[in-house]
Amino acid sequence: MLVVDAMGGDYAPREIVLGVQDFVEETGEKIVLVGRENEIKKELTKKGKSLGYIEIINADEVVTMEEKPTVAIKKKESSVWKGLQLVREGVAQGFFSAGNTGAVMASAVLCLGKINGIDRPAIITLLPTLTGQTFLIDAGANVDVKPENLFQFAVMAQVYLKTAYQIKNPRVALLSNGEEEGKGNDLIKKTFPILKEKISGFIGNIEGKDIFRGVADIIVADGFVGNIVLKTGEGLAESIFVLLKNEVFTGLRGSLGGLILRESLQKIKKRLDYAEYGGAPLLGVNGIVFIAHGRSRRLAVRNGLKVMTKTVESGFLTELIKGDFNVWKD
Amino acid sequence: MLVVDAMGGDYAPREIVLGVQDFVEETGEKIVLVGRENEIKKELTKKGKSLGYIEIINADEVVTMEEKPTVAIKKKESSVWKGLQLVREGVAQGFFSAGNTGAVMASAVLCLGKINGIDRPAIITLLPTLTGQTFLIDAGANVDVKPENLFQFAVMAQVYLKTAYQIKNPRVALLSNGEEEGKGNDLIKKTFPILKEKISGFIGNIEGKDIFRGVADIIVADGFVGNIVLKTGEGLAESIFVLLKNEVFTGLRGSLGGLILRESLQKIKKRLDYAEYGGAPLLGVNGIVFIAHGRSRRLAVRNGLKVMTKTVESGFLTELIKGDFNVWKD
Repeated sequence: MLVVDAMGGDYAPREIVLGVQDFVEETGEKIVLVGRENEIKKELTKKGKSLGYIEIINADEVVTMEEKPTVAIKKKESSVWKGLQLVREGVAQGFFSAGNTGAVMASAVLCLGKINGIDRPAIITLLPTLTGQTFLIDAGANVDVKPENLFQFAVMAQVYLKTAYQIKNPRVALLSNGEEEGKGNDLIKKTFPILKEKISGFIGNIEGKDIFRGVADIIVADGFVGNIVLKTGEGLAESIFVLLKNEVFTGLRGSLGGLILRESLQKIKKRLDYAEYGGAPLLGVNGIVFIAHGRSRRLAVRNGLKVMTKTVESGFLTELIKGDFNVWKD
Repeated sequence: MLVVDAMGGDYAPREIVLGVQDFVEETGEKIVLVGRENEIKKELTKKGKSLGYIEIINADEVVTMEEKPTVAIKKKESSVWKGLQLVREGVAQGFFSAGNTGAVMASAVLCLGKINGIDRPAIITLLPTLTGQTFLIDAGANVDVKPENLFQFAVMAQVYLKTAYQIKNPRVALLSNGEEEGKGNDLIKKTFPILKEKISGFIGNIEGKDIFRGVADIIVADGFVGNIVLKTGEGLAESIFVLLKNEVFTGLRGSLGGLILRESLQKIKKRLDYAEYGGAPLLGVNGIVFIAHGRSRRLAVRNGLKVMTKTVESGFLTELIKGDFNVWKD
């Protein structure tokens, strides 16, 4: 059973509840929705079998999207905290939220604790490439890190891909400003030899232009760089689509060519759309926690819950706890 | 008069020489080409008036694209060093190279010296946005920097935009992982209050998704992040065009729609293409130095030389020398 934060996200609770219903209809899995009961009930449609699989647990407090994590973690009656409690108590196998990333992270660390050997939990996120997919860790959880943190990110990511995605020996790369060993800022230069010695599957540095070429399964960066890469990609893709729309549709409007182009663009957008891939797991806490984009709508929620179910069933957490995170420190 | 490194770049000397000829034909400006005389002469076509405006200075040594800067700066018979010498001696007003960025930078600092008050020269590069253009500084010169370096980058960039681009009060932003003051890694958090106090036109932090929206004229980042942002953008744009080509042209091949689409894509590609904008200046050295993309072809060389001429004529260097770069240090 999974717990979902009904109050987190720009379109909560409506789109969260709808996404949960879609998921339940399709899979028959049980979901606990945590949040303001009357608001959740208003959004629940009376369709099909879904109502029988959804339980509501009331939580009066709400963590807002702008709230400081230090404030949020004190709200013990919030949907975030009450949801995480269910995971802690073993009642639920995972917690899903499209809410305030910093607040969910801080609450998860405090409520569930960290896995032995992990200093900093990190967010891993899927990125579509020309040939398939790659995973970026850390997508924004930790802005200032040490080499041993990046090493731990790499180990956690490998365990995640091996279990939840059945990738046998995931290729790990460091994101840098040049391919050769010795390129990079101080952090990357110090991390390189650690990964080289300890990570089977380490392929060295890659550059920004290689991200979408699919040369690595796992791309390791600190959360500051990771966040900027993700948002730059998101912004650029949107800008190109705006330009295409302005440029091309003017000439093709109403024609068969226009129709074909529109369909193709939809396909490409779908390939690039975070909503298709749902949430991103927070690796390193003692429990399975997925954090979705604040703009998630029902499709992202449904898809996120599917990936989460796969992660729970894969035995990821058990394998992660067995991981060897020891490494020399400066 | 400008000096051009005929031997720098993936397509040197051929494309460099052709770009110089195009530039000279169009503008009537004089150019000195430095490099292996016999190789340059082989590429010079006998067209029009251009030969009369081009002087060749022989340089036997070549700095390769892979060479370490520490090695390159010792080659005093290279096209890079001999070209920079002409600027130092006041014979030429600017040096242009599509060669090894690190080597050209290190040589420029050594040969020309730094402007008083500047600890670290930086590369500023133009990026197209939805509404026009923005400038990113540092595009890759300095991987590990201090807050006072970012402050100096901001001041230099403002002087550059005011003089060479006649933008009156350029808006300056810090690239971060969130908009609010207090977001960012340690470097950004420490830089924010300095810019806030000292830079008129400082608009605060922006995120990666804002880069292409045209909200700022100048985006300040360290060279590690700057390089990754630029290359991520380049790689993603290329990937989207590959996907578009595969998806769309299959359906539209040979049709009128296909033709219109092809034209529109060319337009957009042109808008995003670094070649359209030519080189990026290295700000902070005692002289005007432009470093172009290694993949530059004749168009990029011609356009880069045009921007360089504009920069020389704008009095940029005189204004930069007057700049106030003083700031408290930690």
